[in-house]
Amino acid sequence: MKIAILSIGDEVIFGEIVDTNAAHISSRLYDVGLKVQRQLSVGDSDLDIIEAIESLAGHADFVIATGGLGPTVDDITARAAAKAAGRRLVLNDEALAHLHGFYKKAGRDLLPASEKQCLLPAKTHLIPNPSGTASGFVLAIKGTSFFFLPGVPVEMKRMLEETVIPAIMAQNRQLQLVRTRVLKVFGLSEPEIENLLQGVARPDAGLTIAYCVMFPEVQVKLRAEGKDEAVLAKLLAEGAASAAGKLGDYLYGEGDDTIDSVVARLFADKGVTLSLAESCTGGLVAKRITDLAGSSAYFMEGAVTYSNAAKTRVLAVPAALLEEQGAVSSAVAISMAKGIRRLSGSDIALSVTGIAGPEGGTADKPVGTVFLALAGRSDSMSKRYNFFGDRERIRTITSFTAIDWLRRYLLTLP
Amino acid sequence: MKIAILSIGDEVIFGEIVDTNAAHISSRLYDVGLKVQRQLSVGDSDLDIIEAIESLAGHADFVIATGGLGPTVDDITARAAAKAAGRRLVLNDEALAHLHGFYKKAGRDLLPASEKQCLLPAKTHLIPNPSGTASGFVLAIKGTSFFFLPGVPVEMKRMLEETVIPAIMAQNRQLQLVRTRVLKVFGLSEPEIENLLQGVARPDAGLTIAYCVMFPEVQVKLRAEGKDEAVLAKLLAEGAASAAGKLGDYLYGEGDDTIDSVVARLFADKGVTLSLAESCTGGLVAKRITDLAGSSAYFMEGAVTYSNAAKTRVLAVPAALLEEQGAVSSAVAISMAKGIRRLSGSDIALSVTGIAGPEGGTADKPVGTVFLALAGRSDSMSKRYNFFGDRERIRTITSFTAIDWLRRYLLTLP
Repeated sequence: MKIAILSIGDEVIFGEIVDTNAAHISSRLYDVGLKVQRQLSVGDSDLDIIEAIESLAGHADFVIATGGLGPTVDDITARAAAKAAGRRLVLNDEALAHLHGFYKKAGRDLLPASEKQCLLPAKTHLIPNPSGTASGFVLAIKGTSFFFLPGVPVEMKRMLEETVIPAIMAQNRQLQLVRTRVLKVFGLSEPEIENLLQGVARPDAGLTIAYCVMFPEVQVKLRAEGKDEAVLAKLLAEGAASAAGKLGDYLYGEGDDTIDSVVARLFADKGVTLSLAESCTGGLVAKRITDLAGSSAYFMEGAVTYSNAAKTRVLAVPAALLEEQGAVSSAVAISMAKGIRRLSGSDIALSVTGIAGPEGGTADKPVGTVFLALAGRSDSMSKRYNFFGDRERIRTITSFTAIDWLRRYLLTLP
Repeated sequence: MKIAILSIGDEVIFGEIVDTNAAHISSRLYDVGLKVQRQLSVGDSDLDIIEAIESLAGHADFVIATGGLGPTVDDITARAAAKAAGRRLVLNDEALAHLHGFYKKAGRDLLPASEKQCLLPAKTHLIPNPSGTASGFVLAIKGTSFFFLPGVPVEMKRMLEETVIPAIMAQNRQLQLVRTRVLKVFGLSEPEIENLLQGVARPDAGLTIAYCVMFPEVQVKLRAEGKDEAVLAKLLAEGAASAAGKLGDYLYGEGDDTIDSVVARLFADKGVTLSLAESCTGGLVAKRITDLAGSSAYFMEGAVTYSNAAKTRVLAVPAALLEEQGAVSSAVAISMAKGIRRLSGSDIALSVTGIAGPEGGTADKPVGTVFLALAGRSDSMSKRYNFFGDRERIRTITSFTAIDWLRRYLLTLP
């Protein structure tokens, strides 16, 4: 079965936004075992939209098109689709009723111009849009079913789940199944992982591996293709177990896990409380910890002590230590962690001090020099890192490494 | 002139990553006045790549293709391109010399298997890759020039700037120029802005307006098309001035400005210092303030006081106040701001307390209830907001609103 995605909008084709809709649709179809064969994007131009529809009609079985169904002048998808299908554009009563109902429910007044979004190709089937005003529609052109959806992600996503995927699955005569498992790895480079995992893939049996660097982590994608669900599950289970054995504690999670969610679960499970003292990450670690609902159960307090004065006053880092060792040093990192732990009474405390750049580097401590420290009830440790890249990259990998420290500490890993 | 982009990679077509390369290329070409007509993505399959190349050859003048030039088994772009062009695949001496030189310079050993990335179509021109190992190449197929680049963004971007764009511009016989200005607006909805800006666009003169919601801000894109650089500059200047007059202080910046960078500049210019006390944003505001280099000059300190105990101990918020008014209240927000200002000695202090959800809401104070407060040397103020959406959305708009408060305070706006 051949499936294509068509994204319509000047903002995509001019590079003003990144096309997350296409990625979302591809990913959701892949989840249910369907491969997208191509993604195509064109701008808000009648000619380009018609040409795109014609290039896909008769070639793909299904096309999921997004964008250009709204009420403004640059929303011309319905008109172009009608032309491509050789249909008239008519005011669709059902779409109109939905539009009026939507405004009534929201208690807002409807501008007459908004009715434009109900001008749809004649004899089309509507795709209900429970979250927005613009109805979607289905058109068959040269044997290809085109699903037209609005480009607003929250509306498109719901219509995809509720109407489009069920419609495609109902006609799915494809016997080839695709199943995947994604392993999340931090602390090894892509070549190191590829080297470790030699022999795990079994292309003859239908099990392949792909690697995807999502800085600073690497995702290992195990993919099984075949006709028998049970065989694929077994292939993936064996592959994942073999990979896990080779990756050891660099493997932190799988699937929807993020290092943040894994660590959040560990804190909740173990009933351990946390406080943070940050310098160069400036609140980024605290932000990541509190991104997740429920973090108030274990996260007690964070101090963003950018200046030396704040380090001394808030965290009681001795001024002499700052003078002698410098703010970016192992001794200051430990003193910061101990300081915030003492203040907050948390079980453990983590601190970060470093030079995120672009200014502030020296020969001894160039930009990217970072010290992490962790203080527990009776122990403390610190380590120096030398990261590379720009300010954003250094702050990202520093926060990732800090959160991985928490994971390793809670799991009593090295 | 017709330009297309071809993204090659299973990770794009399976929705595992969002195709930022296509957006970057489109955006850079648009900057130099070139419109991309279509973006096409296919997976790592010989057949699909060949079909994509054939569908573009003879139709576009230029195609910029990315991805699949590396050393691993799933890198098959060069082979497919050679087939589509009817050429043999040969070991390219120049590419090989670059590869060896690259490894020698990095002091690393080259695995023999890595030489695979030097197997390129015969009689091709190389595109130098100063930042990586895989050389790019140019192929002419049916009068269309195909530029093949690696998918690694940092490598692709440099090759685009240094080789591809100059090559296209050298053959640019297009007389139609496109110039844009982007106005950044916060605090008004898209329909409100559209309503305010009626009459600013002058489609007959070549000046159009598009709106792009980048939650929680809205970008207003003024586009001028025509043949004369000076005329376009004047059209844009007039359009921007007229729009600015209508948008008033909701217009916070233009072009590459972000609300964070605008506020950073204001702090630096005015020599004012800042401290922060955050509850529900958990460090997000501090993170945004310190994202920018140079923030250590004005950002003194942040306190992430998640628990009531921390609010009392660190910020001296009276326990009785927390008891009577609740942690999410105007009085507590003001007490938090005054507390951190007193501690840090900063000129101004901003505080955030609220319910980001999904738990913790009540009938009186549902999820999304947020209080901001600001304390200066002699004044203080607070305001209640009722935001909607999930935890991430609420935290995002809260941090945006907090930073906009700083902008308005520093500019003495209401």
